[in-house]
Amino acid sequence: MLSSLSQRTEQMQPSLIRAIADRALGQKDVIPLMFGEGCWPTSDIAVHALQDALASNDHFYHPNSGKPSLRRAIADYQSALYNNRTASENITVTASGMQALALTAQALISQGDRIIYIDPVWPNLPEVFKISGAETQPISLYPHQGRWQLDLDQLLSMLDSQIKAVLINSPNNPTGWVMSEEEQQALLAHCRHHGIWIITDEVYARLCRGRQVAPSFQHIASPDDRIISINSFSKAWSMTGWRLGWISAPAELETVLASLTEFNIACPAGSIQAAGEAMLKQGEDEVHLLQHRIDTGFQIIKDRLGHHQRISFIEPDGAFYVLFGIDGFRDSLELAFRILEAGKVGLAPGAAFGPAAEGHLRLCYAQEPDKLKEACDRLDAVLNRL
Amino acid sequence: MLSSLSQRTEQMQPSLIRAIADRALGQKDVIPLMFGEGCWPTSDIAVHALQDALASNDHFYHPNSGKPSLRRAIADYQSALYNNRTASENITVTASGMQALALTAQALISQGDRIIYIDPVWPNLPEVFKISGAETQPISLYPHQGRWQLDLDQLLSMLDSQIKAVLINSPNNPTGWVMSEEEQQALLAHCRHHGIWIITDEVYARLCRGRQVAPSFQHIASPDDRIISINSFSKAWSMTGWRLGWISAPAELETVLASLTEFNIACPAGSIQAAGEAMLKQGEDEVHLLQHRIDTGFQIIKDRLGHHQRISFIEPDGAFYVLFGIDGFRDSLELAFRILEAGKVGLAPGAAFGPAAEGHLRLCYAQEPDKLKEACDRLDAVLNRL
Repeated sequence: MLSSLSQRTEQMQPSLIRAIADRALGQKDVIPLMFGEGCWPTSDIAVHALQDALASNDHFYHPNSGKPSLRRAIADYQSALYNNRTASENITVTASGMQALALTAQALISQGDRIIYIDPVWPNLPEVFKISGAETQPISLYPHQGRWQLDLDQLLSMLDSQIKAVLINSPNNPTGWVMSEEEQQALLAHCRHHGIWIITDEVYARLCRGRQVAPSFQHIASPDDRIISINSFSKAWSMTGWRLGWISAPAELETVLASLTEFNIACPAGSIQAAGEAMLKQGEDEVHLLQHRIDTGFQIIKDRLGHHQRISFIEPDGAFYVLFGIDGFRDSLELAFRILEAGKVGLAPGAAFGPAAEGHLRLCYAQEPDKLKEACDRLDAVLNRL
Repeated sequence: MLSSLSQRTEQMQPSLIRAIADRALGQKDVIPLMFGEGCWPTSDIAVHALQDALASNDHFYHPNSGKPSLRRAIADYQSALYNNRTASENITVTASGMQALALTAQALISQGDRIIYIDPVWPNLPEVFKISGAETQPISLYPHQGRWQLDLDQLLSMLDSQIKAVLINSPNNPTGWVMSEEEQQALLAHCRHHGIWIITDEVYARLCRGRQVAPSFQHIASPDDRIISINSFSKAWSMTGWRLGWISAPAELETVLASLTEFNIACPAGSIQAAGEAMLKQGEDEVHLLQHRIDTGFQIIKDRLGHHQRISFIEPDGAFYVLFGIDGFRDSLELAFRILEAGKVGLAPGAAFGPAAEGHLRLCYAQEPDKLKEACDRLDAVLNRL
């Protein structure tokens, strides 16, 4: 039966993060640091807004692009954050950041189109473009002086008029790498020259250590630039399970994205949209609270793993992960399984994020301090026996 | 900029239903019968279940295939409804029937695969397969003795081993045509012989006049048959704005659909899934209430339009639409606009549903009796002036 399915399914890779998670589910007392979500429930601001929407019979279809009031709120949010002039006509509301990427891929990619992406990478990012027919090619970040670094010259040399788009995820999952404004300026100038689309996954934009927001193409670009920004309520607003995100794109493209939304989901649920709108308008303190919580989490992890003799610790500049190596181990999936079995700590194997992350483990530090300390104790104990 | 987009976007047709809706939005006092949704809010069963889920911090990610408890509930529901043995492993929960179709298309269709569908048709059904690369070919229903009819021999003659799948939407939107069990038996035997997938959109399964459920391939098929059933909470459970549906498929295919879910949305929102589960378990009376309401609506429309001299009225066997023609008019979009302007009644133009429906208008009778009567009065007045 499987031989009668589409070509795109033949190449699809199952998620190695899910492989660990599935094993962890069968075990008691695991500290789950393998997922890309915090441990804190969503604010009552969202809960109450959703309840109010349902109470006022918001049970019916909405426009493909999203509710006008939410599109307006997102446009205002971005305009203030990036000092630009985002309009409602630039915004498509989506049922998750993942769906925003899927719609973008459907809008841009014909069979055989070539895409460049930066590796290590959240695997879904290149995968969804492959599913739409793209041929994808990575350029790898490399550790240098305790930081992940991009070879910008190499990237620019790969980007000619044969390339349809470049995928940038900054702050990056899993490395925490953040692209600087200077790098963005150089890349933008180069892509303008060659007519290359920049697809920028900014779901961690508000989780950038020491800053309120990460450097963004949205701050430096003009409205007609071929820039598509992907965002989500999942991370900064702690709404992973609500499935709400958005795309910011040139208005001409938005009409195409709206049509594609009709053929993918029609529209996100109205009550969920109401929750997102309330969080944008009243939830800024919640973002600050999360920023504070993950700063605390990072310090714990840095204090414990940053000085460990057998751990190569590379400091992240954003997101809420550390990607660390353990001396003497290359097979990250095997290592993740051993730590899960012997130490009851769930970590994502680096191999899930591409070849450049093999030999590493990803730890999500968006967790309560006690749990993080306990996880570090367990890791210590396991390392002593490895 | 649009010339740099994907090939699939070049062929994409904007929705003519949305064209009418957008015009109607700017006008006061329109009776909106152009959409495929009832006028009644969702039951409190769903609202309370969602509130309970949020109160118990159901704010986080869920498995790609959906919550185990919801998959179990859907499997039990189908097993009882069709006297078969649907298992959880056959069920993928999706964020709408539309998304269920999109995932199915991604799972099956490679560029150039050939699909047969029945026309008139909800335009999104063939369109989403085109977006995944399919070449689609219709076979038209035709009116005969006051009913829409399928030429089964013609359909079977079109289905050889060069065809990847056949799309069946029964009860059909927009005609109300219902495929008989005898027709299903013949089609299933033929498709088994040629290895053709049957994709059956059953979102109106519970809205079949005079029956609790429409004839279904699920009742006659075995677990290994190449049958993919699409369903949704939108219609029978009045949950259009909640965006929840499901796919029932062979277990081997479900694992592929789960992977594709990861790359489309990851999972539907947990609280929305809780609402759907409650409706399946406690909402049967709500389905009966809707059945009763649309029976009432149908009688009003039949009494008023069924005997109108200038209206060719074809009786639907299911769903909640009538597709009717008006003597002397072929251009359904122009006619729909004229009725909207002059009569303040919103109707969907037949052209939206393919060539076989041109010259007709689709009216959704899932409305309060007073509104339907008022809409008929207005239609009468307009017809007298046309």
